Amino acid sequence: MGNSVAVTQACDFILFGTKGDLARRKLLPSLYQLDKSGLLNSDSRIIGVARNPLSREEFQTLVENALNEFVKEDLCQETLARFFERCDYVQVGLTEVGDYARFKGVLSDERITVNYFSTPPALFGDICEGLASNGLITETTRVVLEKPIGFDLLSSKVINDVVAKFFNENQIYRIDHYLGKETVQNLVALRFANSLFASKWDNRTIDHVQISVAEEVGIEGRWGYFDKAGQMRDMIQNHLLQVLTLVAMDPPVNLDADSIRDEKVKVLKSLRRINENNIHDKTVRGQYTKGFLQGNEVPGYLEEEGANQASNSETFVALRVDIDNWRWAGVPFYLRSGKRMPAKSSEIVVHFKNPPHNLYRESYRDLPPNKLTIRLQPHEGVDIQMMNKVPGLGQSTRLQTTKLDLSFSDTFKDQRIADAYERLLYEAMLGNQALFVRRDEVEEAWKWCDGIINAWNESDERPKPYPAGSWGPVASIALITKDGRSWDE
Amino acid sequence: MGNSVAVTQACDFILFGTKGDLARRKLLPSLYQLDKSGLLNSDSRIIGVARNPLSREEFQTLVENALNEFVKEDLCQETLARFFERCDYVQVGLTEVGDYARFKGVLSDERITVNYFSTPPALFGDICEGLASNGLITETTRVVLEKPIGFDLLSSKVINDVVAKFFNENQIYRIDHYLGKETVQNLVALRFANSLFASKWDNRTIDHVQISVAEEVGIEGRWGYFDKAGQMRDMIQNHLLQVLTLVAMDPPVNLDADSIRDEKVKVLKSLRRINENNIHDKTVRGQYTKGFLQGNEVPGYLEEEGANQASNSETFVALRVDIDNWRWAGVPFYLRSGKRMPAKSSEIVVHFKNPPHNLYRESYRDLPPNKLTIRLQPHEGVDIQMMNKVPGLGQSTRLQTTKLDLSFSDTFKDQRIADAYERLLYEAMLGNQALFVRRDEVEEAWKWCDGIINAWNESDERPKPYPAGSWGPVASIALITKDGRSWDE
Repeated sequence: MGNSVAVTQACDFILFGTKGDLARRKLLPSLYQLDKSGLLNSDSRIIGVARNPLSREEFQTLVENALNEFVKEDLCQETLARFFERCDYVQVGLTEVGDYARFKGVLSDERITVNYFSTPPALFGDICEGLASNGLITETTRVVLEKPIGFDLLSSKVINDVVAKFFNENQIYRIDHYLGKETVQNLVALRFANSLFASKWDNRTIDHVQISVAEEVGIEGRWGYFDKAGQMRDMIQNHLLQVLTLVAMDPPVNLDADSIRDEKVKVLKSLRRINENNIHDKTVRGQYTKGFLQGNEVPGYLEEEGANQASNSETFVALRVDIDNWRWAGVPFYLRSGKRMPAKSSEIVVHFKNPPHNLYRESYRDLPPNKLTIRLQPHEGVDIQMMNKVPGLGQSTRLQTTKLDLSFSDTFKDQRIADAYERLLYEAMLGNQALFVRRDEVEEAWKWCDGIINAWNESDERPKPYPAGSWGPVASIALITKDGRSWDE
Repeated sequence: MGNSVAVTQACDFILFGTKGDLARRKLLPSLYQLDKSGLLNSDSRIIGVARNPLSREEFQTLVENALNEFVKEDLCQETLARFFERCDYVQVGLTEVGDYARFKGVLSDERITVNYFSTPPALFGDICEGLASNGLITETTRVVLEKPIGFDLLSSKVINDVVAKFFNENQIYRIDHYLGKETVQNLVALRFANSLFASKWDNRTIDHVQISVAEEVGIEGRWGYFDKAGQMRDMIQNHLLQVLTLVAMDPPVNLDADSIRDEKVKVLKSLRRINENNIHDKTVRGQYTKGFLQGNEVPGYLEEEGANQASNSETFVALRVDIDNWRWAGVPFYLRSGKRMPAKSSEIVVHFKNPPHNLYRESYRDLPPNKLTIRLQPHEGVDIQMMNKVPGLGQSTRLQTTKLDLSFSDTFKDQRIADAYERLLYEAMLGNQALFVRRDEVEEAWKWCDGIINAWNESDERPKPYPAGSWGPVASIALITKDGRSWDE
């Protein structure tokens, strides 16, 4: 086996929304890193698009500023020179079909085209129309879609239908940046290449699974935007459900994009519906109030700039998810995600069942279980909590928990861990859809989330308050303790 | 649960063979360490015994010299003073029944007596007789027996019968110092307190097990002694079979000494017999020839001082052991032990079966298996070999082996790892037989080993030569490769 990494195909990478926050923070820096790593084809071009007139030089300055601001290490001048050479700019009013003709002198038939729609989804149709009207869509043209893909099932269908008029599903790359994370990728290898887990990954061996994404940030000045969504749409519908499907899916036929996505969809279809009948048993939504984070007082959600006092939007969600299939019957998945938590942390924790009989009851009435923890951030890594004998004399029946640890940043010290966007841009340019979300996944996820959101909306209950800097409302503790379990902290 | 460690009962610890190598190297230093750790009862006494007349002061000097030579760190003067206070000496010709009367002024009814027979087993009967004739054996008297317990089944029965005339089995503590090792102890906890292993410890999940004890030393001037035994009796019959039983035993009813030993005996009874019909398939014996170790030329076994050129004694043994029971049918245990190996190393490696289907055949025709390694020495610890994704972009289907590691000496830096003898002396003084070998274990082990030794003796074949500093005869490689497996190095 060789470990050489393929260089991407020569492509024209068209960046719609080139002046936006995502482009500056993530996309341009990621393209730069790919170039620096030698993974961008030497003929590839990067074409910025916005409505303003910019000279090529002005665009390069914009790129340079973004890189200076958002690339963590010192810029490599050699890479920078090469990168600028690739950069071009085209002025397009996205709703002006005629403007798209300006691409003609810039693009080349020698290269495939990858369109990155880093714009509000309301514009996706206009962009597609503009490209199509000017003959800029062929069978090799790809389109990368940023989230959110809709606001609910209905609106996501509208967006997907619009794009589907111009592109086949195999040309569409829907971003969920969690799929680009190193440890999420590794999850698949852990599950299917290790018999210690491969043959122990079901309701006979696993007690329950916890998936937590805690954010320290609040809504960062995006009150209006966030308030329309809420944490359920912002985090659960996409990131947490995507992670859940990778944890829960059956072994795929092979590692091809559609084989994996077929299995992920099956999981989404198996999620037990949550509606007005079980919403109180299965969900807790919260909204943060004034509190302290790292010693600093921070405002409550309703005190943030632009807040509507009557808002019922949740900034915290805890769920008990049941998967009604053969593998997972009786094994709850507890999901939790919130803003203004005490720390930024994302992890998956698989709690294994205890041995059938406890030989060590003198030390432990209940043995602490084996746990597999997959940390997405910070400190990406994997560890296994095991029971070991307390070392020393006279301790032969005394146990302690110890961790067998594989921290990616320690173990692979010399290797920079690529940002998720770097991986996703790379895969999109390679034409590999495995790390992108298929239409049926988006729609099944919305279908399930809509049930919860509707039940919340129809209920009289407001989101439960929790002080900023806490782990959420008390009710979220009760959600899991009533099952005789507790959240990993 | 409290982690306080019990102090031993007040005892008179009588050390027969007090001037011998084992006493000086291991027993006296271990007693000192127990005293230093506060685990010796403040009323306990240590009574040296030999045939020479020694004053109490002369005996203390002998003890001090031993401690100075064999305790690794600087001696603690406070402990030393306390330790000397405990020390007494009694002059006894071991075959002189009358001499034993001299204990009478020294021992106290307030204390239990622990007799440590660090003498050739031929003297065990005389010592028992001497003690008994002077009324020094009561129901609370214990006796600790050093190996070798015999030379074969018959001679071990003779020894055990002699001792059994004076002591009940629950008073007899047969030493196998491997049972005192921290990691061997931990093996039981690993197996039965971790569901990751507890429910995966049989022929459905384990492919095979390797147990290796490699010694760097040769026969260290003990040619005459060793040549009568050979590696089979010196290492396999006791240490490796003991370790094998702990790896292979069924879950015991509880952790009591006899519950565990009941299960160990069942394993020994299930060992498939090796005799003249399968000796060539299942065993390889070797004898080292001249070679190099760490760059120094070392003599062959037949060139060592005092060697008999016609000796057929083996200095290396490799075995394929089959356990004919429900748990292990079809799972070979490969045992290997030799002198003059390239490095000193003892380990148990459990090779798990691969997942039923290989999703990663593009990277690996055969996936490297998950392996649990329990290192007894050097660097006591546990690690698990896992498969992980190669980190980085474009590697989503590429795997590498990585180790999740728990090294005792790293993890418990501040804690000295007690010597095996320290633990065993401590347990004998506590009255806990779990770490000692029961009579039926010794005899079942001999029964099985006798079959192999007899078959070797009846065969025309000499031990296969291997150069000192190698991993044994080529035939020992073939022993495992013919099964499609290979030794862990």
